[in-house]
Amino acid sequence: MTKIRIVILGASGYTGAELLRWLLNHPHADVVALTGDSQAGKSIGEVYPHLSHAYSHTLISHDAVDYQNIDLVFCCLPHGTTQEILALVPHHVRIVDLSADFRLHNLESYQEWYGHAHRAPQLQRDAVYGLSEIHAQAIRAARIVANPGCYPTSILLSILPLIQASQIEPDRLIIDSMSGVSGAGRKAVQGSLFTEVNEGVKAYGVGGHRHVAEMEQEVSNAAGKELHISFTPHLVPMNRGISSTIHTHVTNGNKAAQLHATLSAFYADAPFVQIMPLGIMPSTHEVRGTNLCRIGVADDRRSGKAIIVSVIDNLVKGASGQAIQNMNLMFGLPEVAGLNAVAVFP
Amino acid sequence: MTKIRIVILGASGYTGAELLRWLLNHPHADVVALTGDSQAGKSIGEVYPHLSHAYSHTLISHDAVDYQNIDLVFCCLPHGTTQEILALVPHHVRIVDLSADFRLHNLESYQEWYGHAHRAPQLQRDAVYGLSEIHAQAIRAARIVANPGCYPTSILLSILPLIQASQIEPDRLIIDSMSGVSGAGRKAVQGSLFTEVNEGVKAYGVGGHRHVAEMEQEVSNAAGKELHISFTPHLVPMNRGISSTIHTHVTNGNKAAQLHATLSAFYADAPFVQIMPLGIMPSTHEVRGTNLCRIGVADDRRSGKAIIVSVIDNLVKGASGQAIQNMNLMFGLPEVAGLNAVAVFP
Amino acid sequence: MTKIRIVILGASGYTGAELLRWLLNHPHADVVALTGDSQAGKSIGEVYPHLSHAYSHTLISHDAVDYQNIDLVFCCLPHGTTQEILALVPHHVRIVDLSADFRLHNLESYQEWYGHAHRAPQLQRDAVYGLSEIHAQAIRAARIVANPGCYPTSILLSILPLIQASQIEPDRLIIDSMSGVSGAGRKAVQGSLFTEVNEGVKAYGVGGHRHVAEMEQEVSNAAGKELHISFTPHLVPMNRGISSTIHTHVTNGNKAAQLHATLSAFYADAPFVQIMPLGIMPSTHEVRGTNLCRIGVADDRRSGKAIIVSVIDNLVKGASGQAIQNMNLMFGLPEVAGLNAVAVFP
Amino acid sequence: MTKIRIVILGASGYTGAELLRWLLNHPHADVVALTGDSQAGKSIGEVYPHLSHAYSHTLISHDAVDYQNIDLVFCCLPHGTTQEILALVPHHVRIVDLSADFRLHNLESYQEWYGHAHRAPQLQRDAVYGLSEIHAQAIRAARIVANPGCYPTSILLSILPLIQASQIEPDRLIIDSMSGVSGAGRKAVQGSLFTEVNEGVKAYGVGGHRHVAEMEQEVSNAAGKELHISFTPHLVPMNRGISSTIHTHVTNGNKAAQLHATLSAFYADAPFVQIMPLGIMPSTHEVRGTNLCRIGVADDRRSGKAIIVSVIDNLVKGASGQAIQNMNLMFGLPEVAGLNAVAVFP
Repeated sequence: MTKIRIVILGASGYTGAELLRWLLNHPHADVVALTGDSQAGKSIGEVYPHLSHAYSHTLISHDAVDYQNIDLVFCCLPHGTTQEILALVPHHVRIVDLSADFRLHNLESYQEWYGHAHRAPQLQRDAVYGLSEIHAQAIRAARIVANPGCYPTSILLSILPLIQASQIEPDRLIIDSMSGVSGAGRKAVQGSLFTEVNEGVKAYGVGGHRHVAEMEQEVSNAAGKELHISFTPHLVPMNRGISSTIHTHVTNGNKAAQLHATLSAFYADAPFVQIMPLGIMPSTHEVRGTNLCRIGVADDRRSGKAIIVSVIDNLVKGASGQAIQNMNLMFGLPEVAGLNAVAVFP
Repeated sequence: MTKIRIVILGASGYTGAELLRWLLNHPHADVVALTGDSQAGKSIGEVYPHLSHAYSHTLISHDAVDYQNIDLVFCCLPHGTTQEILALVPHHVRIVDLSADFRLHNLESYQEWYGHAHRAPQLQRDAVYGLSEIHAQAIRAARIVANPGCYPTSILLSILPLIQASQIEPDRLIIDSMSGVSGAGRKAVQGSLFTEVNEGVKAYGVGGHRHVAEMEQEVSNAAGKELHISFTPHLVPMNRGISSTIHTHVTNGNKAAQLHATLSAFYADAPFVQIMPLGIMPSTHEVRGTNLCRIGVADDRRSGKAIIVSVIDNLVKGASGQAIQNMNLMFGLPEVAGLNAVAVFP
Repeated sequence: MTKIRIVILGASGYTGAELLRWLLNHPHADVVALTGDSQAGKSIGEVYPHLSHAYSHTLISHDAVDYQNIDLVFCCLPHGTTQEILALVPHHVRIVDLSADFRLHNLESYQEWYGHAHRAPQLQRDAVYGLSEIHAQAIRAARIVANPGCYPTSILLSILPLIQASQIEPDRLIIDSMSGVSGAGRKAVQGSLFTEVNEGVKAYGVGGHRHVAEMEQEVSNAAGKELHISFTPHLVPMNRGISSTIHTHVTNGNKAAQLHATLSAFYADAPFVQIMPLGIMPSTHEVRGTNLCRIGVADDRRSGKAIIVSVIDNLVKGASGQAIQNMNLMFGLPEVAGLNAVAVFP
Repeated sequence: MTKIRIVILGASGYTGAELLRWLLNHPHADVVALTGDSQAGKSIGEVYPHLSHAYSHTLISHDAVDYQNIDLVFCCLPHGTTQEILALVPHHVRIVDLSADFRLHNLESYQEWYGHAHRAPQLQRDAVYGLSEIHAQAIRAARIVANPGCYPTSILLSILPLIQASQIEPDRLIIDSMSGVSGAGRKAVQGSLFTEVNEGVKAYGVGGHRHVAEMEQEVSNAAGKELHISFTPHLVPMNRGISSTIHTHVTNGNKAAQLHATLSAFYADAPFVQIMPLGIMPSTHEVRGTNLCRIGVADDRRSGKAIIVSVIDNLVKGASGQAIQNMNLMFGLPEVAGLNAVAVFP
């Protein structure tokens, strides 16, 4: 089989590096070019010493890409910077965008959360929200896939099947998530310094994290009505991992057992989503370095409520791994191609 | 002023060591004896090398204590082991017990959560629940103070004043807490190994952590009715710290601002409880190594709800620091004696 | 090609789990059985939840193994327990032993360091010291390979080629190494608790770590004379990784540049050993989760001395990865089969 | 007793915050003003939330300080920026400078290591190198004390008494040190991000760390001849702590026992330097958060050599704690005033 010829835009960020980690052993991937405007001219090994033995590419500027022989773009640029750049990509090239720029179908909603009018509204309309297990069919046919945020991936995989089955009340969700620091990227900011993060935890973005927008979009779609979600992220001293604790109000006297059965059936054939035995909660240690999502369900002490815990590696299933999974879907490859792995534990 | 003559039972655990850290600079404390059955005969410096320059005591067995010249016992023994031992302490000696053995006033409730009948029911009846800021008056007069659990301390300080003021609904509380590993003590168990904890997070005890019992006791008392709490603890890779995210349903159209005002007034003179500016959430970094509790309040995205984040150092305000604060109350000392400190940051 | 049929003895330790992580994607490996005496009867997923989706094996006791259809044993049992067990393995089965039991060719030296006479002296005589890049030829033909220790691997790969080339003085080596905690295994001991290790470093085993024995064996062989090494290990708060800082006295007025040239030539075709540019030191971050060894060389401030820094992942190149590399050599496979990877960074 | 009226220049760095942590409980300190040019106008609680309850000062610019009623300046400004500023401080004010600017008595040496001519040579000549236990007498009388670097403090305390006693060879020292990340300060740089540091170690500055200069100055003075030191620092994933492993060649057939006796005698009355029992090595855990230096001595496996391990908290004895110790000496206070503490463990 011929290989998919790939460009990574913005390869100098952590999601770019993580794509390269997985693509090394992907049987159908050919990484043709890497871009990085501020670091153009450097080899990828200078930017990421750990990649030096595996890739000899030199970073080029975004507009130096020759798209003629390219099949796919992974776009790892920061939020807000991708719209004009992706609008110029020739139409024969398919796109998986890891930024937040194309996740919101509603242009007003985009403007509200991001503070400016969308700059590529046509592309926005074409974009498919790339939550692989939920939107696989649309992803297969999509030209542009908006790869979901890390928090939303951990949360939506757990609750969308339950909302579709009307087993939980979609407008009474309360979610507390914990994330590792790599979610903040490689930018040198005081709040991400080792000394500021280590040996402590911190709730942040209370009441207003931007990932709320895409979660409310997907939950509202599944519920058939506009609704709001209570979501509180917390920063935890670890490199990788997201764990979301989701408090649900069940419908019709359901118990965790019914939710568990629904999720187990829904994901019976999904290679990357694993439902824990009833009452057992997963740990992010079990998915570190993998494209897995593990979900546990248990009854709450208060009747009428069930607790769901969902864990992923934010850089893999929450970003680059799911991006490759989407590539596999888009190009008719086995969904697991290049993504089979066991957690790096300990 | 004469000094309080102190025995620490079970000094070889982390709470014992933390008591010794603070008592070193306490102007009115005289540590007379340390016990530790399995390590009796060793110097405290052999058990804890970091204490070797400050204390030269040799651990003795529990029954080798001569109580004649003792004023106060700090009991740091494991849950379930203190009842018979404390029942034998002469009546002139006052007690601060850091275990869970005397926290539940209801003997049936104790039996239900701990699996056996209480072995010192008379003492149990005398015990005061030692949440310093809430029960200061009773603590001053108590012979035996049951020092609260770490999770309950972080949570109850936030919600009891609001329940007493009828500003939140006490039967709709949802609480997610994160704790450092020192809460598990110094026992060598696989789940507390560095390699098992580092670089990951994990929900545990979902639906059934024993600290629920004392929280429900206090909340029920404040609310004037029996009720249940939804509480989920999480283990986080850090030594010290607890952060509790508390989801509340407000009453009467209240907003975070009203809750904030109530808490600010309630704790106006409390030296160790600090209410953050409205909408600002505290980090455990800010209280690491101190007896402080910091509380933040913000409106949730969903109307009718407010989010409270409360942070403490689990070994200090959540254990040994609050124990000394209670000693200060019991002996008529300034509440802050020996406990003034700024967080060890970074 | 037919697959190599494999048994892992002692699969419940970290090196066993790490073997399984790599073997999942190895094109020529068939894991037939896993043993673990104390946990026999449990599924591997109960022992290691992160493996539950990839392996459904149940642990059996060591003597329940049917060796008839087995080609290779990986032995991951603790030091001192493997000799009798391996002596009973049928002769058609080849062995890679990850313990220290067969690393010392000299039986008196074994007795001196391990405190008892060797219990399988014949097997000992057959064993090849499995430092892949140095002893590849002997490993290919060996029936039993004694997989090197983690510290020795990081150190010997750096210095043996230089000693063979007479560019450094073999009897004046001073080595300080730092290791992550996984090197201590999964046994529940107080010294490996998160709280005891986190936020600190500690020199240990000063003057007498057992890995000295195999290093002195190999260095003495290369130098053609008996000599002693100064080696001090340090425990560092991280899961994985070893970094060794090696202080050398150069011969004949050599500088780091000559050492660098020698190492570069020696490892020109070695897929897993990478010599950094002259004067650049590697970090363990660059090899985390890989079978790589990276080596940097620089002149010391004092003339006549050069400093070498060598980094590996102690569980991979320092244990299970090198074991698979040795399997590849023994069975005529490409050395890199199943071992290609980029570091898990961040 | 009247209090010492203090200004902290550059209070927004970690050493400034650490000074404030200790001065809170110092019986003779009165913090009058805090400066911070880039953050002037902010309260210290905005810059460091953990200080908000203890200090209400607003940062002012350096030239807004009114020195009329000031007795002492702690200068925490970055290296290279303090010379002009301190030259303008009125002569009645005494100075403890925590930067490297006044540590080198030799102006050419300063120029060589720091790349520019010294800008306050007269002040430089007056400065005393503030290694408290070694230069106490000169410190008491000094107007300006150059507080030592963190690495040099850990190392020089160990070796200077042995060199003065001619028990080790001063020109054959080989030193490997490990440091926590707080040594790099609070500046937002990529290399100090949590994700870049966590789960790995790294040698850096091989052959050329600036702290070499002050170590060679002090060692050369003690030895009575110019000499060079081999020093390699390593970055370790922890907030605080330095451990130095010092390889010495003993003289006259000395053993570790003789070195141990010499150090024990030298520091018999030193409240902050503790010599471990012979053969026992200290851990940085034992000194975390304290002004202690702990030193262990053991024979090396190679005869003629002894290994010394010396640990401190880099922010305390390696910076702010020693600065306060020097203040105590300068103002005739007990050396331990305000500095008594037990390590924050776990």
